[in-house]
Amino acid sequence: MSSLSPPPIPMELHAGNRQKLVDSIRRDLSSSNRSLDGFVLLQGGEEKNRYCTDHAELFRQESYFAYLFGVREPDFYGAIDIGSGKSILFIPRLPADYAVWLGEIKPLLHFKETYMVDMVFYVDEIVQVFNEQFKGSGKPLLYLLHGLNTDSSNFSKPASFEGIEKFETDLTTLHPILAECRVIKSSLELQLIQFANDISSEAHIEVMRRVTPGMKEYQMESMFLHHSYMYGGCRHCSYTCICATGDNSAVLHYGHAAAPNDRTFEDGDFALLDMGAEYHFYASDITCSFPVNGKFTSDQSLIYNAVLDAHNSVISAMKPGVNWVDMHKLAERIILESLKKGSILTGDVDDMMVQRLGAVFMPHGLGHFMGIDTHDTGGYPKGVERPKEPGLKSLRTARDLLEGMVITVEPGCYFIKALLLPAIENAATSKFFNRETVERFRNFGGVRIESDLVVTADGCKNMTNVPRETWEIEAVMAGGPWPPVTTKNNSTK
Amino acid sequence: MSSLSPPPIPMELHAGNRQKLVDSIRRDLSSSNRSLDGFVLLQGGEEKNRYCTDHAELFRQESYFAYLFGVREPDFYGAIDIGSGKSILFIPRLPADYAVWLGEIKPLLHFKETYMVDMVFYVDEIVQVFNEQFKGSGKPLLYLLHGLNTDSSNFSKPASFEGIEKFETDLTTLHPILAECRVIKSSLELQLIQFANDISSEAHIEVMRRVTPGMKEYQMESMFLHHSYMYGGCRHCSYTCICATGDNSAVLHYGHAAAPNDRTFEDGDFALLDMGAEYHFYASDITCSFPVNGKFTSDQSLIYNAVLDAHNSVISAMKPGVNWVDMHKLAERIILESLKKGSILTGDVDDMMVQRLGAVFMPHGLGHFMGIDTHDTGGYPKGVERPKEPGLKSLRTARDLLEGMVITVEPGCYFIKALLLPAIENAATSKFFNRETVERFRNFGGVRIESDLVVTADGCKNMTNVPRETWEIEAVMAGGPWPPVTTKNNSTK
Ligand SMILES: [Mn+2]
Ligand SMILES: [Mn+2]
Repeated sequence: MSSLSPPPIPMELHAGNRQKLVDSIRRDLSSSNRSLDGFVLLQGGEEKNRYCTDHAELFRQESYFAYLFGVREPDFYGAIDIGSGKSILFIPRLPADYAVWLGEIKPLLHFKETYMVDMVFYVDEIVQVFNEQFKGSGKPLLYLLHGLNTDSSNFSKPASFEGIEKFETDLTTLHPILAECRVIKSSLELQLIQFANDISSEAHIEVMRRVTPGMKEYQMESMFLHHSYMYGGCRHCSYTCICATGDNSAVLHYGHAAAPNDRTFEDGDFALLDMGAEYHFYASDITCSFPVNGKFTSDQSLIYNAVLDAHNSVISAMKPGVNWVDMHKLAERIILESLKKGSILTGDVDDMMVQRLGAVFMPHGLGHFMGIDTHDTGGYPKGVERPKEPGLKSLRTARDLLEGMVITVEPGCYFIKALLLPAIENAATSKFFNRETVERFRNFGGVRIESDLVVTADGCKNMTNVPRETWEIEAVMAGGPWPPVTTKNNSTK
Repeated sequence: MSSLSPPPIPMELHAGNRQKLVDSIRRDLSSSNRSLDGFVLLQGGEEKNRYCTDHAELFRQESYFAYLFGVREPDFYGAIDIGSGKSILFIPRLPADYAVWLGEIKPLLHFKETYMVDMVFYVDEIVQVFNEQFKGSGKPLLYLLHGLNTDSSNFSKPASFEGIEKFETDLTTLHPILAECRVIKSSLELQLIQFANDISSEAHIEVMRRVTPGMKEYQMESMFLHHSYMYGGCRHCSYTCICATGDNSAVLHYGHAAAPNDRTFEDGDFALLDMGAEYHFYASDITCSFPVNGKFTSDQSLIYNAVLDAHNSVISAMKPGVNWVDMHKLAERIILESLKKGSILTGDVDDMMVQRLGAVFMPHGLGHFMGIDTHDTGGYPKGVERPKEPGLKSLRTARDLLEGMVITVEPGCYFIKALLLPAIENAATSKFFNRETVERFRNFGGVRIESDLVVTADGCKNMTNVPRETWEIEAVMAGGPWPPVTTKNNSTK
């Protein structure tokens, strides 16, 4: 059961996103003395079949298109007239037998109302419409989306259609501006991200409560997917669920087809669950780590609390102006200090930081922007360089925080043989390791704690609501309520 | 809960599939006096990102590759030496940091043992290996997969790799032979299809029991997905779930992104659920239709029993040698007769058949081969022509049945406005309609009943096990057991 139900989807959100883009692009064009004529043009995603078959993959809209238009159907185009700010959707002209196989063929007006745009035409009218609507002189100018995704190293595919050669096209202006629009979230966007967080938090708790030793990892995935779809209406997840137990939790992106959450876990195992539901395109990205039998051992507590201290310290320090690389280093330092206290490491922590020892235990970045993509746009705009040092180079952004950014805080501490063994042998770092203690953690796997934060005017707000303290987790796994029942004076029972 | 658990996966199945292909291709080459030298070469599926992002889509192997090698990882190649029958897998050489992000880098021997092949090399050794292994004269000959999928009208993509120009390639021999191998199922294949059917049948029953008016259609999907993953280990479905209620059930392929199972259904609504889980690549494809409140009305019984009679009559008639177009017509005739008995139609049924009136109520084909693809290969081999008449042209095969074929039997009866209204107006067919009664069914939607059958030596076996009679459905929805409890003399209680 659930206390939640899917909220209505406000299409004003996308109208707001379009207005924001128009304002930004006008500022940019004005500042370089360019004309405000022309159209932004995006091509929506296309439905795809699996290989040569007629198996249709479940369609999920391309993210930039989703941001501007919120359209859930495939094969659309969308445009914005920069001069007037008016928006246009182009929809595919469906064959008559679509009505038999795929559903009612809806009129243009339906899409105009549903998606709150100014005009709707068919895709085959695109050339004519641009010619008629263009108010400038010469060939109409189309601003197309082309630019690097700094997480994938892939380039977005600019819109194309029959007759595009009749237009002037600009491939450089739009991408950095639109990517930057997505970085700062509006309050309507935050509401959807909050709901994705609410249902995913609840689903994580549901899984914690139902886990028992002897289960398969994928059964935790199944419970999560079911809860977030059944009660949250979330048909898609933000990413493939990572349900790692035992030393699988030292595999950062476990859960894919070649490592498909198929281990049977046993009493004494630790679980790392990184799972997030998506609601109307907007992501959540939450990691909980806990012992599958519901009781932390002292070694599990040691590593868990090292990571939790880092998680909490970063959240306490976050506010506009703070640099994300500094937050990553703060998390590293706290983890290294804890490992020293736990006699796993020995020596001077400043020295460890110079040797980048933190990257042995946390090879991934501290967190990433999150929005319509789990790894959202804008991490490395022009002028922000990716660091080159181990660990830091994995950061998906090196920016200073701004109010309205949504970013994950996900420190981790892993015992990854492929990193640990070389570091123990390395002349520069071997001195730091207490080999006997390290040996005890050889098959420990890892711990990650991940929450989704929105940066506020003077700090940040945690959108994720799951038990984090070891005693909170133990209480919830033993059947206790979440959130804990509070007495009148607000102390927790 | 469930009485089932995922069975072990026998890799001998794929070794058997390879042997079958080698035998077939040798026969073919011998019959045309061609040399038995050369290699069959297939390229496995590649993992894909969503648009320009780093969002990795959950990988599902290409079906021909899955058939021959059973490989669950992306980016493999697989070959079979036609002369010796020996099998070779080529695996990608993974970068060192794969171990940190994606998991242990497994040695060649691991894949040799897991997939029961004779040799394993890296993909970058492919040119060298073929040159070394080739026993014939001249350039080594590669038989590549290239041919039409008659359901999608797409062509399979032949393998390609750097250096392929150093080889002779044959693009015509392999496809028809391999497609035909997949038509007749081995006993090991049937065991997996049976398990996919068992868990999907159980999941359908679970959904029937939990349905209550006021739910959303997608909640039925969520319950099905959860049951088949949680207890059957089925991470993939054979196709996107169709969870249609009310007049959505007249949309044959409802449930896709533009019609996403999002209606709230009410007391009195009828549901059509077409859902099937996939187990180790092998499909199930099951449709159940029932009233969401658990009690059939007389109109619902009328249409339901028309379809059930067709379903049962076809199954009774199926055996080797029977032609599938005849089975389709048998189903049509029974449905038309029932509609006449129910006073929806009037006139001579033979005359209706001549006018193809059946296609108004059942515009899709009676059923299709099913295996690694839901719409499996081999429906229209050379020499079998697709019929051109309404309804019949939708058939995915027009073949005579053979022992070992797996085929769905899925008659349906729908009130589809886009077909019904023109037929009522049409001079040749208007006379058949009792307009008053038809009007009563205007928003009825439709009924489909779909089971998966394997053709046996003297008949067929139904692999699907769900309640089908109206009283069986009502009993199960009221909480009764399935299968029903039998007394000693085998009569059902
Ligand atoms: Mn994350
Ligand atoms: Mn089917």
